[in-house]
Amino acid sequence: MFSYEKKLQYPVNIKKKDLRLAKYLVTQYGGSNGELAAALRYLNQRYTMPDSRGKALLTDIGTEELAHVEIISTMIYQLMKGASLEELREAGLDKHYAEHNRALYPTDANGVPFTVAYFATTGDPLADLSENMAAEQKARAVYENLIDLTDDPDVRRVLLWLRQREIVHYTRFKELFDYYKKHYKNGEIVLNDNSNRDNDFNNFIFGIM
Amino acid sequence: MFSYEKKLQYPVNIKKKDLRLAKYLVTQYGGSNGELAAALRYLNQRYTMPDSRGKALLTDIGTEELAHVEIISTMIYQLMKGASLEELREAGLDKHYAEHNRALYPTDANGVPFTVAYFATTGDPLADLSENMAAEQKARAVYENLIDLTDDPDVRRVLLWLRQREIVHYTRFKELFDYYKKHYKNGEIVLNDNSNRDNDFNNFIFGIM
Amino acid sequence: MFSYEKKLQYPVNIKKKDLRLAKYLVTQYGGSNGELAAALRYLNQRYTMPDSRGKALLTDIGTEELAHVEIISTMIYQLMKGASLEELREAGLDKHYAEHNRALYPTDANGVPFTVAYFATTGDPLADLSENMAAEQKARAVYENLIDLTDDPDVRRVLLWLRQREIVHYTRFKELFDYYKKHYKNGEIVLNDNSNRDNDFNNFIFGIM
Amino acid sequence: MFSYEKKLQYPVNIKKKDLRLAKYLVTQYGGSNGELAAALRYLNQRYTMPDSRGKALLTDIGTEELAHVEIISTMIYQLMKGASLEELREAGLDKHYAEHNRALYPTDANGVPFTVAYFATTGDPLADLSENMAAEQKARAVYENLIDLTDDPDVRRVLLWLRQREIVHYTRFKELFDYYKKHYKNGEIVLNDNSNRDNDFNNFIFGIM
Amino acid sequence: MFSYEKKLQYPVNIKKKDLRLAKYLVTQYGGSNGELAAALRYLNQRYTMPDSRGKALLTDIGTEELAHVEIISTMIYQLMKGASLEELREAGLDKHYAEHNRALYPTDANGVPFTVAYFATTGDPLADLSENMAAEQKARAVYENLIDLTDDPDVRRVLLWLRQREIVHYTRFKELFDYYKKHYKNGEIVLNDNSNRDNDFNNFIFGIM
Amino acid sequence: MFSYEKKLQYPVNIKKKDLRLAKYLVTQYGGSNGELAAALRYLNQRYTMPDSRGKALLTDIGTEELAHVEIISTMIYQLMKGASLEELREAGLDKHYAEHNRALYPTDANGVPFTVAYFATTGDPLADLSENMAAEQKARAVYENLIDLTDDPDVRRVLLWLRQREIVHYTRFKELFDYYKKHYKNGEIVLNDNSNRDNDFNNFIFGIM
Repeated sequence: MFSYEKKLQYPVNIKKKDLRLAKYLVTQYGGSNGELAAALRYLNQRYTMPDSRGKALLTDIGTEELAHVEIISTMIYQLMKGASLEELREAGLDKHYAEHNRALYPTDANGVPFTVAYFATTGDPLADLSENMAAEQKARAVYENLIDLTDDPDVRRVLLWLRQREIVHYTRFKELFDYYKKHYKNGEIVLNDNSNRDNDFNNFIFGIM
Repeated sequence: MFSYEKKLQYPVNIKKKDLRLAKYLVTQYGGSNGELAAALRYLNQRYTMPDSRGKALLTDIGTEELAHVEIISTMIYQLMKGASLEELREAGLDKHYAEHNRALYPTDANGVPFTVAYFATTGDPLADLSENMAAEQKARAVYENLIDLTDDPDVRRVLLWLRQREIVHYTRFKELFDYYKKHYKNGEIVLNDNSNRDNDFNNFIFGIM
Repeated sequence: MFSYEKKLQYPVNIKKKDLRLAKYLVTQYGGSNGELAAALRYLNQRYTMPDSRGKALLTDIGTEELAHVEIISTMIYQLMKGASLEELREAGLDKHYAEHNRALYPTDANGVPFTVAYFATTGDPLADLSENMAAEQKARAVYENLIDLTDDPDVRRVLLWLRQREIVHYTRFKELFDYYKKHYKNGEIVLNDNSNRDNDFNNFIFGIM
Repeated sequence: MFSYEKKLQYPVNIKKKDLRLAKYLVTQYGGSNGELAAALRYLNQRYTMPDSRGKALLTDIGTEELAHVEIISTMIYQLMKGASLEELREAGLDKHYAEHNRALYPTDANGVPFTVAYFATTGDPLADLSENMAAEQKARAVYENLIDLTDDPDVRRVLLWLRQREIVHYTRFKELFDYYKKHYKNGEIVLNDNSNRDNDFNNFIFGIM
Repeated sequence: MFSYEKKLQYPVNIKKKDLRLAKYLVTQYGGSNGELAAALRYLNQRYTMPDSRGKALLTDIGTEELAHVEIISTMIYQLMKGASLEELREAGLDKHYAEHNRALYPTDANGVPFTVAYFATTGDPLADLSENMAAEQKARAVYENLIDLTDDPDVRRVLLWLRQREIVHYTRFKELFDYYKKHYKNGEIVLNDNSNRDNDFNNFIFGIM
Repeated sequence: MFSYEKKLQYPVNIKKKDLRLAKYLVTQYGGSNGELAAALRYLNQRYTMPDSRGKALLTDIGTEELAHVEIISTMIYQLMKGASLEELREAGLDKHYAEHNRALYPTDANGVPFTVAYFATTGDPLADLSENMAAEQKARAVYENLIDLTDDPDVRRVLLWLRQREIVHYTRFKELFDYYKKHYKNGEIVLNDNSNRDNDFNNFIFGIM
């Protein structure tokens, strides 16, 4: 289970309204390469990782991605805060206002609602970790695009920090990928048999009960 | 931000495989009335609740729904655990096996991937709280259908508990709805003006920083 | 069955082209909180309302929402009528022109095609009526946003009237919700049994045959 | 606007429960070639038909398709009426029960929610009428498949009648297609100019006000 | 199988950047009436055409549509080539840049990802050919809209050629439709029996093996 | 452009009807990890690969995946060939018959229509190649699941060959990933600047014109 702490993982303090940025920053909330996709992907996949090491890593990073969802949400909220109707109109956010007023909604930059079709879970640890490594690379690339699109140091600082976290996550997923690749020498036979997959989720999840 | 505790909010200990049940229980994971929809809905809406009371309630219930997502996930995982290919085939889960092996994936009971199109955020507190009250009613109704569909006491006990939580959440949302309805006497004018909406999210979220 | 009358339920007579307004007014046609969603939701749910009173109310309001779909469609049509390519381009409707010329298409304000995933039907009258009450609140909120976005009295008059109808519908759904809540004292048991649900649809629907 | 008459366009009186049939009949409710798609397609396209003849035909057939939606809905309702949980389970409708109890929901036969992405509107009368002719052919083909799948004379009679209506509609659309093709000799120039499209919708729609 | 030739079916050589055009040209790549939809529709339907003539025609046109996908893609690529961030911003492509940098992605003009829900396959040759005739008409109409939206002769030349190909395809589909209509005199009976459908795909596909 | 050769890349000759297998084999046609997703992903991404080597590799593998789409389609076609209505019913393909008769349609195993939301294109070569490596791993995993689900040597032989191709593709993508990683030493700076991305697509694509 999760408990909430009333602080952000990384502080957000944007002083300058920037409605255009809000418009595409939302892709890291509800877009295909965004933080919500990452959080749900890892928390969903962790059950069938073949051992506690994998389950723990995916739980750990999945939980951090939930915190990133909150960081991105707070940024969007602050960027739109106090915007007048006229300002929203100029930034092309009148469409957003019509449907959501100044509230948030998890979409990509074009307003397409988030769907879990953006990610896959095969139950094969190597395939799932490849998917995760790709997810981190894609999130990194999007952060780089976003950094190109803003000059505000208050925004860039947060985006640079988030980008850095994706690189750290990529490395950790790659280490696990390499470990499983080596350990499961007979690859697909062991994996398809599944006999050593189901062992220890209960141990992991109920460990302290 | 969220921190993870290695225990479930309510214990799950299913001893009897029931693959058919797994097949429709998944709707409370990735279906339109399920726990994931609830968690994301409330955590998304909280930013534009008009005061700390609303922000706190939505954060609180949203966080609990994340724990429910984990409970449902664990149930599905346990229900499929160690199932043979033959058993999966008989239960009609060969289609699931082809794509996901024995892993989880957040869909409705027909396999349609979860989408946030299942919920709305208008930025109007009364409308958003009505949406939430409806969400709790719908989740309750689905839990009742699921309880009809199983005789296993280990499963029923969890489902009855989850159903009860939905009723508690409904009541709490209704109290807040009634409070806002009374407090914001001039209703839509105040709400459209938005001047008193943006005040205190930072206070709330950064309160202990 | 339905018969068509060659008049609008409420007159629409917009004299001033306003292409930007057309761009977001469409959300009340094909958006998640719009009139098409309302019409289909109620006409779909009416079959499993527990008595003729419920079936009649949902048929009645569902039919009126079909008339609202037509009002919104006519407004969009009039707002774009005779617009030159240059005007469409300036309003950002060149994308619309590429695909639809000056024709209508039921999407939300971002151009996402309408889907019934926007609404739910649980077969539980209390849950379904909660859903409907929420739908009316959300439609009201969107109308208020739209009213904020226009100064044209010809447009505002229609939107104010439509908003008023949503409030009337909300009240009627709430009365029915309260009636069922009281009448079905033993709530979920009766509802899950379904024995008194199936009685009278035929009576209702074939009553005058 | 539409007014509701408390009778079906064609009587439905199914005496024999057939849950499997209900399972795929739903495609003519919410599937890509079904009645709801047809109704919304024609009612949406009518605004930009180039003259009153076209507007009237699409309004007329669109309104009839709404009546067909009701016929299909009533058939599904009657086919599931009074089914026990055990019967639902055997027919593979336990998944439906979990989410919708015995209520209706507009999906295709696999449970994919209806979307207007199933149809297109280009604003070009020849293209739109081609789309409509195809829609009628496809609906006819699906009715033929459904007729193959049932022996119940009460069901077949209705399906044969509905199939016949699609053929009538096809013929009427084809006549209009041929008329426009001949009349608009200089084809695309006239159509792109649009000057003679916008003339008479108001006349048509407000004709009797 | 397909082999790739390193040339375009029709030469594309756009010298003038036009980012706005790129924004809606994409609909002929990933939109509902576009080239990708056409290619996949025909290549998918060809298996159940009733004879080699039909299978060959759909394979032939389907393969050409793949070449059209490449033409459209190359146009979009050339239109955005070397665009500065400032130019992308002015054209409203900053949202595109955030997610895709300057890469392509198959969506409609609003950024909605391509889905095969845009087309249908019924297995009935007359219905499927009607669908295809409609597809060609709709693509023609969209090309006409696009031609309206540009003055660049390098662009118009390609679009006029593509439009012309759609008319040729329409004619060929219509000829086949008329041929099947005449040949299969007893229409639905023969078609539902399917006995003469399955004959010759292997002959066709393996004919030269 | 593409030219069609009337043979399959790998021969398919299934003698034994297996309708259940057809039901889930379709996921490699229209599912998230299937051949159509792979083909469109690579052919879409190739434009913004940074040099001819990358463009050529993606064109090459993308073209081969089109051939795999055809292999999978032929397998499904042969598996259903000549099946009686009774056999379709027993295999749960009556739903398929209702909508598609015995024709193909690109969906996942649950009948959800294919969407390009299954893949991403960021325009960053390392991110895009990570995505591709993941795609090949996921396809391999699904082939292993499918091989588990059949005993027919005629089917297994083809699936084993296809699985092997995914491993070859993975290796080739990995080599390119490693090459770019090394070559683009200053990584993101170069990539965001894009100056060396746009150089040579024309050379590549028009090389032999």
